[in-house]
Amino acid sequence: MSPSPRSRAASAAAEDWRPSGVVTLLTDFGVEDAYVGVMKGVIASAGGADLRVIDLTHAVAPQDVRGAAFHLAHAWRYFPAGTVHTCVCDPGVGTERAILVAVAGGHAFVAPDNGLLGPVLDAEPRAWIGRLDVDRVALPDRSRTFHGRDVFAPAAARLAGGTAPGELATAVDDCERVELPLPKWLDGGGMLATVVSVDRFGNLIGNVPAEDVAEGSWTAVVGERRAALHGTYGETAAGELIALVDSYGLVELAVNGGSAADALGLGVGDSFRLERSA
Amino acid sequence: MSPSPRSRAASAAAEDWRPSGVVTLLTDFGVEDAYVGVMKGVIASAGGADLRVIDLTHAVAPQDVRGAAFHLAHAWRYFPAGTVHTCVCDPGVGTERAILVAVAGGHAFVAPDNGLLGPVLDAEPRAWIGRLDVDRVALPDRSRTFHGRDVFAPAAARLAGGTAPGELATAVDDCERVELPLPKWLDGGGMLATVVSVDRFGNLIGNVPAEDVAEGSWTAVVGERRAALHGTYGETAAGELIALVDSYGLVELAVNGGSAADALGLGVGDSFRLERSA
Amino acid sequence: MSPSPRSRAASAAAEDWRPSGVVTLLTDFGVEDAYVGVMKGVIASAGGADLRVIDLTHAVAPQDVRGAAFHLAHAWRYFPAGTVHTCVCDPGVGTERAILVAVAGGHAFVAPDNGLLGPVLDAEPRAWIGRLDVDRVALPDRSRTFHGRDVFAPAAARLAGGTAPGELATAVDDCERVELPLPKWLDGGGMLATVVSVDRFGNLIGNVPAEDVAEGSWTAVVGERRAALHGTYGETAAGELIALVDSYGLVELAVNGGSAADALGLGVGDSFRLERSA
Repeated sequence: MSPSPRSRAASAAAEDWRPSGVVTLLTDFGVEDAYVGVMKGVIASAGGADLRVIDLTHAVAPQDVRGAAFHLAHAWRYFPAGTVHTCVCDPGVGTERAILVAVAGGHAFVAPDNGLLGPVLDAEPRAWIGRLDVDRVALPDRSRTFHGRDVFAPAAARLAGGTAPGELATAVDDCERVELPLPKWLDGGGMLATVVSVDRFGNLIGNVPAEDVAEGSWTAVVGERRAALHGTYGETAAGELIALVDSYGLVELAVNGGSAADALGLGVGDSFRLERSA
Repeated sequence: MSPSPRSRAASAAAEDWRPSGVVTLLTDFGVEDAYVGVMKGVIASAGGADLRVIDLTHAVAPQDVRGAAFHLAHAWRYFPAGTVHTCVCDPGVGTERAILVAVAGGHAFVAPDNGLLGPVLDAEPRAWIGRLDVDRVALPDRSRTFHGRDVFAPAAARLAGGTAPGELATAVDDCERVELPLPKWLDGGGMLATVVSVDRFGNLIGNVPAEDVAEGSWTAVVGERRAALHGTYGETAAGELIALVDSYGLVELAVNGGSAADALGLGVGDSFRLERSA
Repeated sequence: MSPSPRSRAASAAAEDWRPSGVVTLLTDFGVEDAYVGVMKGVIASAGGADLRVIDLTHAVAPQDVRGAAFHLAHAWRYFPAGTVHTCVCDPGVGTERAILVAVAGGHAFVAPDNGLLGPVLDAEPRAWIGRLDVDRVALPDRSRTFHGRDVFAPAAARLAGGTAPGELATAVDDCERVELPLPKWLDGGGMLATVVSVDRFGNLIGNVPAEDVAEGSWTAVVGERRAALHGTYGETAAGELIALVDSYGLVELAVNGGSAADALGLGVGDSFRLERSA
């Protein structure tokens, strides 16, 4: 049986792997401990001190695979082609869950097979997906609780050093994929948005893409409060609630100079409505 | 009309720009999100993976331009000549506010024109100041809410890669400058100090420079509490309130092994007195 | 008098110093201020922009020398030989306490002589230990409150750039050493463990090494609660208390998908028992 067009395209993606020497880290480890520092030590030991390691964030909520998927999906394209994205949000560490190596859009990814890579792979149908041969890369005497150090870091270092993905992992047809929630269209032309992230400023990032609100004018509604869709923060008075298209291309609620999360009492998973203005 | 001596010196500063390959980041983005990581991705993409990016801090309070100015003013000289300092504390993002490129003391700076560069420029009268040509450096399809990623990062990468400041920005005569508060001399020879920063240890950093307390002996007074000016923390008993000249060359209040902020209930903007000891 | 075998081995360790270009930082400075960034600026200024600086952690509790010693002891071996570990948890800054340079296991260390290096040196009896000649490395006009910037950073940069340890420091016979607490064997074959660290996940890391529980089966006991020793988190139901050997090779208490610290109300210094299962 000859390979399908899908698998031929995927094989080409893996064969074209050209590392840039940049490795990113995305974890739920926080920075209170030395876990992240130790991962960087392993990468420097395994891949050489020339690799450049960049923190995406380590503040993913513990075991929040969906949150990690959200951050990765909106960040990876800003890195140079040839970057290895190392993603460790891994509630199943030490169990039989697989660890994936993927190549998509010229970037490589190392992540547990728990759905974290879903949004990246959904956007890149020609991606190559492989199951990591753990024994081939792991540190000796690996633990069962810290695969970030013992498995993910050495795998990322090998990829960043130029090892072919196909040497470290065996191609698979597919993998787990979380799906980020989609907005719901309401009767009358409005939408029900779900908050998918809250940033440090208390901005509530919803799941409605800019394209959906490109036509006409829109108003966000939360209980009694209404906020017209604006272009940026500074277009309103300090303290005023506004809606705007944020830097991810998503509609967010913000308070100019304040926190919308505090003002509205909303967080991840909560909803707001978008209505066409009269 | 021939250029003034001031503008000739400034032009020389810009023409002498020699990048070291080091880029610093100073923002109010926090590290809970991937915003800072994405900026580093853009810098690596635009300027090459060889650039070295160093975080000054990302914990400036949201929109606290004065706090950002304080940290920058006390940090930049410790970096190699040729460093590009990228400062994003930018409540006016997406509005008509200009973005500045400055060259001062052999370093380059990219910052919004909101006063953030004031203390640096006040100390470097021969600085060159330019208004960034945003269209020349911005990422395609730039957002109106995240110029750190879409404008500041690519501008910094270009400067760090050796592009002349005058190619990216048009010289201007001056810009907004915040002024850090000055201590007030009181009748009787004492001073009223204002707390300008509180560090992680709860040390209260005042705005009185060491030179002002170099002669004679001094005592800090907060309500009923008095603390003699000492040389360092270890000169007093644990738990004792002390005043000392800190690493910025400013008089600070500290509690040996504890937090002066907690002990005194003081924070940024609050005052304490300095009196000559009898 | 000829040198002792101990001092000959130690001299050999210092003479064999071969830097990798990697420098780690371990401090109690936090990242709310620019202190850490400034240290990196000094390292880049003194040692060149090619040095690669990696944060171990800056979240050591203020002045918690024992906590810093714990993190260092469990992290340093994961870095390449030739790494300089710069440790600044230094309640005695500015007093007469010495600053140490040590070479152990092919790595170099710069730390205050307050015990921080104890666990590293206890594990490496052939280490070379020297007292830093502060005047030889310090920045001009050094402060008495921020030796991380003014002394430790330039010393680390010099070592990372290839200066021989013996040129910067004078050999000494020994130094202060904190000892991490040891578990107590109880009548009946059980052990009393002390919590030595709590990580971001609320895992309670005890001081019992895996070797001590390698034989037979064990149960952790806290008040009325009992938890069998398992291989990893995923082997129990969500929310369940478990004991397991963690990534440091120590027995920890964890709640699968939750925080053992919160569930049990325990923290550093508290105890739990380990009993042989029937």
